[in-house]
Amino acid sequence: MSELIALLPGDGIGPEVIHQARRVLELYRDKAGVDIELWELDLGAERYLRDKTTFPKDVADRIAKEARAVLLGALGDPRVGNLDYARDILFGLRFGLDLYANIRPVKALDDRLVPLKNRGAKDVDFVVFRENTEGIYVNVGGQFKRGTADEIAINEDLNTRKGVERLIVAGFEYARAHGAKTVHLADKSNAMQHAHELWYRCFFEVAKRYPEIKPQHVFIDALCLYLVQDPSPFEVIVTNNLFGDIVTDLGAGLQGGLGMAGSASLHASDPKRVGLFEPVHGSAPPLAGKDLANPFASFLTVGMLLEHLGHKAELARIEALVARGIQERRCTRDVGGELGTRAVGDWFLGELRR
Amino acid sequence: MSELIALLPGDGIGPEVIHQARRVLELYRDKAGVDIELWELDLGAERYLRDKTTFPKDVADRIAKEARAVLLGALGDPRVGNLDYARDILFGLRFGLDLYANIRPVKALDDRLVPLKNRGAKDVDFVVFRENTEGIYVNVGGQFKRGTADEIAINEDLNTRKGVERLIVAGFEYARAHGAKTVHLADKSNAMQHAHELWYRCFFEVAKRYPEIKPQHVFIDALCLYLVQDPSPFEVIVTNNLFGDIVTDLGAGLQGGLGMAGSASLHASDPKRVGLFEPVHGSAPPLAGKDLANPFASFLTVGMLLEHLGHKAELARIEALVARGIQERRCTRDVGGELGTRAVGDWFLGELRR
Ligand SMILES: CC(C)[C@H](C(=O)O)[C@@H](O)C(=O)O
Ligand SMILES: CC(C)[C@H](C(=O)O)[C@@H](O)C(=O)O
Repeated sequence: MSELIALLPGDGIGPEVIHQARRVLELYRDKAGVDIELWELDLGAERYLRDKTTFPKDVADRIAKEARAVLLGALGDPRVGNLDYARDILFGLRFGLDLYANIRPVKALDDRLVPLKNRGAKDVDFVVFRENTEGIYVNVGGQFKRGTADEIAINEDLNTRKGVERLIVAGFEYARAHGAKTVHLADKSNAMQHAHELWYRCFFEVAKRYPEIKPQHVFIDALCLYLVQDPSPFEVIVTNNLFGDIVTDLGAGLQGGLGMAGSASLHASDPKRVGLFEPVHGSAPPLAGKDLANPFASFLTVGMLLEHLGHKAELARIEALVARGIQERRCTRDVGGELGTRAVGDWFLGELRR
Repeated sequence: MSELIALLPGDGIGPEVIHQARRVLELYRDKAGVDIELWELDLGAERYLRDKTTFPKDVADRIAKEARAVLLGALGDPRVGNLDYARDILFGLRFGLDLYANIRPVKALDDRLVPLKNRGAKDVDFVVFRENTEGIYVNVGGQFKRGTADEIAINEDLNTRKGVERLIVAGFEYARAHGAKTVHLADKSNAMQHAHELWYRCFFEVAKRYPEIKPQHVFIDALCLYLVQDPSPFEVIVTNNLFGDIVTDLGAGLQGGLGMAGSASLHASDPKRVGLFEPVHGSAPPLAGKDLANPFASFLTVGMLLEHLGHKAELARIEALVARGIQERRCTRDVGGELGTRAVGDWFLGELRR
């Protein structure tokens, strides 16, 4: 039976890169026997402006019940004036599907992409496991005496043992499966003594179940410093929602920018459940509709999606082809080429077809 | 009347770098007519291990009433096993003295120190205004059902209009005084809709009072990406306690490491009040007692302290001399030299004496 893949192109450059990613998926379907059915969703700013729809319950339900993966482009459009509709969709997927592990590989595919002196692609190769269903993103809190001189505004960083532990376990499982020697916890337990004491304690408890892996602790501030000095010691980093957000954008900088960063959000303990796949970049309104967007992040994301479907060899194949695209300058301007989005797609499809 | 400067060497490499910083202060006192009295405090891990003293009320009171500045080395010692004593002192000073603006210049003094390809010292020159008395650092929160599978751990990010506004004002005032064309707010208002909506709203309100300065908004994740790609557009960044912590460690990476980063914590609206001056680095236990610590961060911090005392020309002079130390390799190993802490101090003092 074919597996249902929902495509959500979204806003800005989203539709352009997802169009190319769709071609890749169709190629796998038509020529490589990957048995999928594509279901394109009309959600995002256009739809919202048209009829105020954000993330309808019937769509959410069908995704939860029938889909194996969602491929999301990007959300955010200045015409709307706020991000409520985007959050409805994005957090509706991440939280609603309980996709607790946001997996973001930070892997430089060419020396040229690494912005650091004396460091090359071999030094930038780690994976961030970002907790994706709680932390500060629950948006619990409020504003009191709003608009007065006495205003107080609070957001709570909310962490549960269940949420923290399953994310940490996912990181260690990945480390074990990939032969990593270390897992780093990045936290701020020296200042956030309640929330991150839980992370710290849980991390070293879970680590005991993986005696072959060395658990290491790093404060988030120090981690950001180390990453610009020498990222080579890092293999797997587990961290909370907010720090994962920050460190993976920094990581994108180390691998050539947001045009090179893919991600998967999984309910990691059950590989049969639906997963969400997104390039890390946003909708980049100034680039939209100009054939300038780098489709490589979405190709790498498709690689992660195919891995999720059980086609394990494809991610490495796609990575190798992207690496060649960079090397041969068959790429967009942001990574030193001169091609447009479509031309990069044409080249990539052509190579993949061989 | 002479001004009272409290010296708090602290732990690890703290005493070594503060010893050199003290020599600089003594030189200014003895040869340049800077009328100061030095008061060395016996606080930190040694004292705590001896008699459990952390931050006595009489010391805190004398600092608040009589001191003009505190120069702190670093706190943290593995022998103690936790950081409670260190937090008592550090947060006792920052919070207790209401030093709401933690000012951290990120300025590379030599091209060689910048870890980025195609970027030099001229591209790394901005100042971070980090809110220093609230945010997640208030450590409000708790743990419920601790140690059970149902555990919940919370830290609250607490922001007041007063606290947010005065920090933002401090950033704009600094920008005005230094002819900066822009001030950036770094927040995560797209996820922290209560706490950072206040920051966002307050920022653009305050900005109206400074029509010559362009207020710009950047999400913290994007900022960390931009900083490794091209830090040159940034002049003044205002941000909350946690993001300021993260972004200034990243910034330290851009200026040659923690051995090159100084900081001042001020009650910025009243320059006559006591200020806290700290190199950004920690106590670095593995380096302690080995004559390896880079004293330049503490010299730059002394420059900020002298500026606070009204000796405005000295910071530039100290910066220039540190820059020469880097250029002529009269520096420690972390910044490419071969000298020890003491030898760097000797050279620096010799030059300053000319
Ligand atoms: C758009 C924003 C809410 C989102 C996040 O913070 O998670 C984005 O930055 C990301 O990393 O996917
Ligand atoms: C030691 C730690 C609590 C401190 C902080 O987070 O403020 C340090 O990282 C700093 O930046 O001064």
